[in-house]
Amino acid sequence: MAVASDPAALIAGAGEGDRRSLARLLTLVEADTDQGRRVLASLFAATGRGWTVGLTGAPGAGKSTLTSRLIDHIRGEGTSVAVIAVDPSSPFSGGAILGDRVRMQDHIDDPGVYIRSVATRGHLGGISEATPRCLAVLDGIGFSEILVETVGVGQAEVDIAGNTDTTVVVLNPRWGDSIQAAKAGLLEVGDVFAVNKADRPGVAETVRDLRQMLELGGGLGWQPPILPTVAETGDGIAELWKAIAAHRRHLLESGELQAVRRARLVQEVRAEVVNTMRRRVRRRMDDDTWQRTIDRVVARQVDPWTAAREIIDLAALD
Amino acid sequence: MAVASDPAALIAGAGEGDRRSLARLLTLVEADTDQGRRVLASLFAATGRGWTVGLTGAPGAGKSTLTSRLIDHIRGEGTSVAVIAVDPSSPFSGGAILGDRVRMQDHIDDPGVYIRSVATRGHLGGISEATPRCLAVLDGIGFSEILVETVGVGQAEVDIAGNTDTTVVVLNPRWGDSIQAAKAGLLEVGDVFAVNKADRPGVAETVRDLRQMLELGGGLGWQPPILPTVAETGDGIAELWKAIAAHRRHLLESGELQAVRRARLVQEVRAEVVNTMRRRVRRRMDDDTWQRTIDRVVARQVDPWTAAREIIDLAALD
Repeated sequence: MAVASDPAALIAGAGEGDRRSLARLLTLVEADTDQGRRVLASLFAATGRGWTVGLTGAPGAGKSTLTSRLIDHIRGEGTSVAVIAVDPSSPFSGGAILGDRVRMQDHIDDPGVYIRSVATRGHLGGISEATPRCLAVLDGIGFSEILVETVGVGQAEVDIAGNTDTTVVVLNPRWGDSIQAAKAGLLEVGDVFAVNKADRPGVAETVRDLRQMLELGGGLGWQPPILPTVAETGDGIAELWKAIAAHRRHLLESGELQAVRRARLVQEVRAEVVNTMRRRVRRRMDDDTWQRTIDRVVARQVDPWTAAREIIDLAALD
Repeated sequence: MAVASDPAALIAGAGEGDRRSLARLLTLVEADTDQGRRVLASLFAATGRGWTVGLTGAPGAGKSTLTSRLIDHIRGEGTSVAVIAVDPSSPFSGGAILGDRVRMQDHIDDPGVYIRSVATRGHLGGISEATPRCLAVLDGIGFSEILVETVGVGQAEVDIAGNTDTTVVVLNPRWGDSIQAAKAGLLEVGDVFAVNKADRPGVAETVRDLRQMLELGGGLGWQPPILPTVAETGDGIAELWKAIAAHRRHLLESGELQAVRRARLVQEVRAEVVNTMRRRVRRRMDDDTWQRTIDRVVARQVDPWTAAREIIDLAALD
C-alpha cells in the first residue's frame, strides 16, 4: 500500500494505526514544510490529552534500557506509548552496539508502541526546535504516554527535556555524578530523579548528595523524589512510573499544569517567531535584494541598522 | 552649557571635541532609541577610517594596565584614541580598587583621549549587541584608534572582541593559562597575543604552549605573533603596538580587510534583524493582541506555529 501524501489522508491513516502514515507526518513537521504546518493546524485542537515524559542524563547512564523497561511497564497497564529518541548513542536511534540488551525489535511488533528515532547528525538545534511539533503530532494522534529520550549534555538537550510535562533525570551511583548533573543544568529541570544501576555501590551517597543539592535550590511545592532503579533487571521501574504519575497528579491537582503548559506554549510561539524570522532572513541571503542591500551597507550608503529594518519589511511579506 | 538633545547638534558638538555631546550620542545608540538610529544613519557614511582593537583575556591578566599603556603610546604618536571598557572589574568601568595603578584620571584631561565605561550589570548580551553601534559612533566622529577592553570569559565577551579589526588576547605566564584561553574560545579570535606580567617565571613555556596550540588550529595567512609585555613598567608595549600595526598592514595589503569587514557588516545586519524581531515580539507581549493570541493557543483554537506567523505579520507593521 502506498503511503498517502495528503496531510488529511495521512492523519486519518495514522489515527487508524498506520505507522508509515505517522512516520510521514513526523517527517513533514520536522522539516517544517507547508504540509507540516497544515498537519499541525489540523491536529493541534486534539492535543493536550497525552502526557509527555522526558528522560535525560549523561551518556551511559542507562536511559535507553530504562526507556525500554518503561515501555514494557506502560504496555502492561494497557496504555499506548510513543517514544522520541534523540540520544545519538541510543539503540533506538540506531546507535546500538553489538550485544546491547535493548533492541527496537523488542517493541516493533506491538501496535501500542511507536518509536521515532531522530538522527541528530549534529543538527541538534533543529531537533530541539522540531521536538514540540513532533510531540504535538503524537499527542494529537492519540498516544496517551509519550517518552522523549535525550542525552543531557548541552543546552539544546536540556531544552528538549524541558518540553515535556515530567522530566526524569537519570544518573548513576558514581562519585561526582550529581555534581556533573548540576553543572549540566539538570537539577533545575528534573521533576523526578532516577539513580540507575543501583546494584552498584554508592547509591546512598549519590542520593544524599543529590538531596542536598536539590534542597539548596528547592522551594515550596513539588519535591523531586529520587528513586533507585536497576534498568537491567527491572528493579524499581514500577516505583519510577509511580513517581512520574505522582508528579502528574501534583500538576493536575495544584492547577500548576495549566500554568506550566501555558508558559510552554508562550515559549513556543516566541521561539517560532524568532526562528521563522531567522529562516526568512537566511533565505533572503540568497536573493538579489539582500545582496544589493549588503552592497549598499559595505559602500556605507546605508547603515546596517536601517538595512535590517528594510529586510524585515521585505521578509514580512514572504 | 546645556548639552543639545538634537542628534545633528550632538554630532556637530562631538565632532568639535565636546565630550558631553559624545557621551550623549553613545547613550542614545546604546539604548537603541529612534534618536540613536538617526545618529547612526547620519554618521555611518563617515565610518571605516578608524582602526578598532579589542583586548580580551581572563580577569586579572592586566588588560586595563595594558590598555592604559597603549593609550600613552598612541598619544605619543600624536593620534587620538577612544576606549570602550566593558570589563566590569576594569578601573575604567568604575571597578577600581583602592591603590590600583590605573586611573581614568590619568587620561581625563587629555582632549585626544575618550574613555567610555560600560557598566555591565549583568546585561552583557545587550552590551554585546550595542558595541558595534558604539564603535560606529566613535569611528564616525573621527577617532583613528579605538580600543575595546573586555574580559574574555563567555560567548558574549568573545563576541565583543570579535567586533574589532584586530583582537589582542592577553594572558599570563601561568601554568594552564593558555589552555584556559583555548577553552574560552580565545585562540580562534586572537590576531595578536600578549603574554603580560612577563617579568614572572614561565614566559617561555607559556609562549611555547600557545605557539603549539595556535599551530594546531592555524592555516595559511596571518600567523598571530606572541609578545611578552610587562604593562606595569611599559616593557614590550611599543612592540605590542607594532604587532597590532603589522596585523593592520597585513589585512590592508592582502585585501582581507574588505572581506573581514563585509562579513562583520553582514553579521551585524543579520543580528539586527533577529534582535529587532525579538524586541518587537517582547513589546507585543504586553499588548492585548498578543494576549488574545496566546489565549487562543492555550484554548487550542490556533496552533503556536500559525500564531507565530500572525504575530510576525502584525509586528512587521510596527
